[in-house]
Amino acid sequence: MPAQADRDIRSGKPLSPAQTRNLLAASGREAPEIPPFPELTLIGQHHGTYLIAQNAEGLYLIDQHAAHERINYEYFYEQFGQPADASQELLLPITLEFTPSEAQQLTQKLHWFEQVGVYLEHFGGQTFLVRSHPFWFPKGEEKEVLEEMAEWVLNERVIDLAKLREKSSILCSCKASIKANQKLTDQEAQTLLERLADCRQPYTCPHGRPIVVSFSIYDLEKLFKRVM
Amino acid sequence: MPAQADRDIRSGKPLSPAQTRNLLAASGREAPEIPPFPELTLIGQHHGTYLIAQNAEGLYLIDQHAAHERINYEYFYEQFGQPADASQELLLPITLEFTPSEAQQLTQKLHWFEQVGVYLEHFGGQTFLVRSHPFWFPKGEEKEVLEEMAEWVLNERVIDLAKLREKSSILCSCKASIKANQKLTDQEAQTLLERLADCRQPYTCPHGRPIVVSFSIYDLEKLFKRVM
Repeated sequence: MPAQADRDIRSGKPLSPAQTRNLLAASGREAPEIPPFPELTLIGQHHGTYLIAQNAEGLYLIDQHAAHERINYEYFYEQFGQPADASQELLLPITLEFTPSEAQQLTQKLHWFEQVGVYLEHFGGQTFLVRSHPFWFPKGEEKEVLEEMAEWVLNERVIDLAKLREKSSILCSCKASIKANQKLTDQEAQTLLERLADCRQPYTCPHGRPIVVSFSIYDLEKLFKRVM
Repeated sequence: MPAQADRDIRSGKPLSPAQTRNLLAASGREAPEIPPFPELTLIGQHHGTYLIAQNAEGLYLIDQHAAHERINYEYFYEQFGQPADASQELLLPITLEFTPSEAQQLTQKLHWFEQVGVYLEHFGGQTFLVRSHPFWFPKGEEKEVLEEMAEWVLNERVIDLAKLREKSSILCSCKASIKANQKLTDQEAQTLLERLADCRQPYTCPHGRPIVVSFSIYDLEKLFKRVM
């Protein structure tokens, strides 16, 4: 959940990181402290799943899928701030099918989709057509993202724009991210580390799981009983 | 400390690994179970100190100094079983100096040095000369090994051949081993792993510290909260 200071109180619009810092500085409050991400040198990749890296402080294991999710989440969260700018009409609309009761509920909730740049139309019966969605939707995963988005809209008791934007960003980032068991070149892995370092919250994935597990020099010495 | 079955009951001579196994098998006893060392693929080196490697089971950190000590220890322990075969007269004897009281004690203990292939002669006063030692003594470290060996012989209350052989092997392996903060090529690192796998006890160094710390796939998933 983004911190309170992340949105403009009047318009409800999300603030940029710099705006957030300025606002907090002006109000005399401190932004929640997130230590800067360390500059790391890649050692290698384990099981196509964890990157292994180091700096002068110690050894770092990085969950590559979680790292990529975080990078993508921050990208999509930014994009979902102005979805209308990027919404594009589809040559072939995407067809979504629902149960009769879902279809009935959904007709009451079509405005929520517009808020995130998705124009959904009741075609009749249980069928809905997606006429347009933002062009930056994860390629080849558009239909699955839209289905999961609809499922969330149907099941969420109280929807608000902040939650919708966050949920949509998580769905897109999940689909767009490299999976575990995927071999990366050293260059790809190093780039992933650098992009992670640029994230506002590089330590946890959008689901709240850790991205990085680190061992200080002292931790390692303890593991090997070099110190007691 | 080598297990009891490591030495011949009659002669007190150490047995080869195969002899030990045969003896234990004949007596119906089992050798203490040491799991076979896994076949590992190198990922890289951390801080010139720990090797990082993997197999299908998970991730392994290996203390390169401790690993080399174990490999050397087993080599020297084997060599110290027949030191006289390898003892060579030195062109220039090595001079060792002691305090008057040490020198006096040492003259009573010269026979212990012979047991490990070192021929030490009282030159007069506080000075002793090493006339010969085994040719496989660690190069460039001979004098230091001999001094530490003399220190041990002087301070140990009850000396026996088994303890002397073990202590001498530890001293030599310590001196002969690569240190921490030493960059290895991938080939050197891979060779170290293979030679470690050939050791009888590849999991602890001669001082009893762990050589290997491993993380199973499940351990890593727990660290990253992929499983609870």
